[in-house]
Amino acid sequence: MFPMAANVLQIIRRAEIPLSKAEIADEAGVSLSAVSVHVERLIHEKLIKLSHIGESSGGRKPKQYSVNPDYGLILSIVMGSSFVQVAFTNFDCDILCLKTSPIHISDGPEKVLSFTNRLAEQLLEQYKLNKSSIKGIGIGIPGPVDFSLGIPIAPPIMPGWDRFPIREYWAKLYDCPCYVDNDVNVMALGEYTKGLNFTTENLLFVKIGTGIGSGIVYDGKLYRGTTGSAGDIGHFDTGRDQICWCGNKGCLEAVAGGKAIVSKGKELALAGKSGFLLTRLQDHGELTLDDIGAGLLKLDPMAVELVRESGTVIGQVLASVVNFSNPSLVVLGGKVSGFGDLFLAAIRQSVYQRSLPLATRNLQINKSVLGDTAGLTGGAFMTIDQLILQATDDDGNHFLN
Amino acid sequence: MFPMAANVLQIIRRAEIPLSKAEIADEAGVSLSAVSVHVERLIHEKLIKLSHIGESSGGRKPKQYSVNPDYGLILSIVMGSSFVQVAFTNFDCDILCLKTSPIHISDGPEKVLSFTNRLAEQLLEQYKLNKSSIKGIGIGIPGPVDFSLGIPIAPPIMPGWDRFPIREYWAKLYDCPCYVDNDVNVMALGEYTKGLNFTTENLLFVKIGTGIGSGIVYDGKLYRGTTGSAGDIGHFDTGRDQICWCGNKGCLEAVAGGKAIVSKGKELALAGKSGFLLTRLQDHGELTLDDIGAGLLKLDPMAVELVRESGTVIGQVLASVVNFSNPSLVVLGGKVSGFGDLFLAAIRQSVYQRSLPLATRNLQINKSVLGDTAGLTGGAFMTIDQLILQATDDDGNHFLN
Repeated sequence: MFPMAANVLQIIRRAEIPLSKAEIADEAGVSLSAVSVHVERLIHEKLIKLSHIGESSGGRKPKQYSVNPDYGLILSIVMGSSFVQVAFTNFDCDILCLKTSPIHISDGPEKVLSFTNRLAEQLLEQYKLNKSSIKGIGIGIPGPVDFSLGIPIAPPIMPGWDRFPIREYWAKLYDCPCYVDNDVNVMALGEYTKGLNFTTENLLFVKIGTGIGSGIVYDGKLYRGTTGSAGDIGHFDTGRDQICWCGNKGCLEAVAGGKAIVSKGKELALAGKSGFLLTRLQDHGELTLDDIGAGLLKLDPMAVELVRESGTVIGQVLASVVNFSNPSLVVLGGKVSGFGDLFLAAIRQSVYQRSLPLATRNLQINKSVLGDTAGLTGGAFMTIDQLILQATDDDGNHFLN
Repeated sequence: MFPMAANVLQIIRRAEIPLSKAEIADEAGVSLSAVSVHVERLIHEKLIKLSHIGESSGGRKPKQYSVNPDYGLILSIVMGSSFVQVAFTNFDCDILCLKTSPIHISDGPEKVLSFTNRLAEQLLEQYKLNKSSIKGIGIGIPGPVDFSLGIPIAPPIMPGWDRFPIREYWAKLYDCPCYVDNDVNVMALGEYTKGLNFTTENLLFVKIGTGIGSGIVYDGKLYRGTTGSAGDIGHFDTGRDQICWCGNKGCLEAVAGGKAIVSKGKELALAGKSGFLLTRLQDHGELTLDDIGAGLLKLDPMAVELVRESGTVIGQVLASVVNFSNPSLVVLGGKVSGFGDLFLAAIRQSVYQRSLPLATRNLQINKSVLGDTAGLTGGAFMTIDQLILQATDDDGNHFLN
């Protein structure tokens, strides 16, 4: 694809509403006639379609164009340490079908990936999707990624995965391009693109689950950093004493992450400070985040305190991050962020107390709009971005085969 | 200027060496003939020139192009809390002449700016420069800036400057466009463009002077943040007890900035713990950073300890910043960074101890290549960038008048 055709396609993808040729030309900074030939070509290749919104109040309404969602399918996969999500989306990143299943990421790539593929195959069969319509595959994994190679780089919670050729594995299975990114990166991208319709140029997506990480969108672009590890806030020094798996002490993750909350909950239960949590622990033999959540609903004082304390410490670190990166939005996602208003309030209070007034003047701190599907949506968007880029690099005439 | 002509000019500006038309076309992703017309136009307008490097080993050597440094002058100004630098550069951002003078930024805009203008006029006269050759003015100030308006926004150490129309002030005086940015931003840009020849895409320029701030280059672009305050690391919580002017306690700036070092030095001197610093204090009635620097050279144990401690704390904060932003280079600038190897070593040690291995795998921590002139150089580069952008926006035919 010619760079200008790619540019036109990206402008249409990034618009909130269908665009006319004149609007596209304006956005691209070129003449109407220069845009026209590419619009016609994209129509011909079925990458975009004619689209109408509302009625004209008089005169001839200009034709408007939007992405053709039926151009093809994207297989989007997000892996966590204990679960995997598998979905197919259309070319406008709408999720068509979705399966979530528990896994142990530490079982290693061969076992986890073949299991994941069986989920994809089940979806294909169940929803009667055509395997040959799959144009690309996007995968988010819970660790640092060399994005250009599509491999994990020394991922701390993924033993056995270091440098495993995830991209190749999938590209071979489905005979189409595959792209691999960090899980929080695709969540940030999903929230920015489809959750917020590109309305917020600088945002930070903070995932608070077992661990704590963030994905960064700056000036409308995902920022991955030099070695793909940008957004790591889990090891900010909180000045507390807990020892982290990384060897340092006081890391945010070790103090306020889901694992830390559960572990402190267990201590409190065993010390006889929370009858509610002790009963849960005795009933199930183990305590989980769900038990803490249940305690919160029952207003168990210790569960409330644990969650409030976690939010306060996370907010203290986010205050520094907000000073440094001056976003207009901090999005909270991940299991712990589901803990509701108490948790959100504790985070907000810390940030507004400790950040500089100028940095928080227009700052919003909200829960994710897309919630659990942010990663799947963002993975699909990232994949289509890369397909377009790739097609631009490789030849001047065809988009995708 | 047509967008493509602007694009061609930017490609030439950002090249380390002169480029041939084929190389420009390759970089722009368009055909040789598409580039050719714009190259000829830029030559005609004297924005670029034919340039030869080395000799061909045989056959005809293709013509190569570089920026025409003699296209015009840029007036570049950098203000600190206690000094101002005024320089004229050519169109390739080389500094032609330079004056530095003490000021008190708290004297307010009218007094400081008219004094600054006298310095500019002196340079014009002394170096027989033609005022009408000035194409643009770039200014770096020690506070947050609304870049699009060219005004300071609630700058904490610039009383009386809030929303003062700096851009208008200069644009009227010289009848040419003026652009205002934060001082550390232009330092980061200068270091990235002319100090490092665009070789490092992700860098953090940390200025350690009276206060502590940083400028951010991500993916080859200056990142200013939502309200222009990105890069603020001066108020990261270090867990220490010192109260900061911002009202919080433990801020990096209050613990490890130049002002904090001097103030602790004074305490030590008065407590009889450093004969050297006490003598200095008695001789001059006040202690300054220069006295601490002199103590370092004399190996006064207290001066050494003060500087090492500052470096250690700064390094602890930078470790978190490095985890989050994953740059490939941290550049140290500002007066305190002139304290030499001891200071640098303390910072490096802290960062490498506390950052994640993946984030520091390819990380360099170095002193600024450009040193004191980074801001002036970056201000000129920023100004020319904006002139090109402006010319692209305004009309399709002429570059600048």
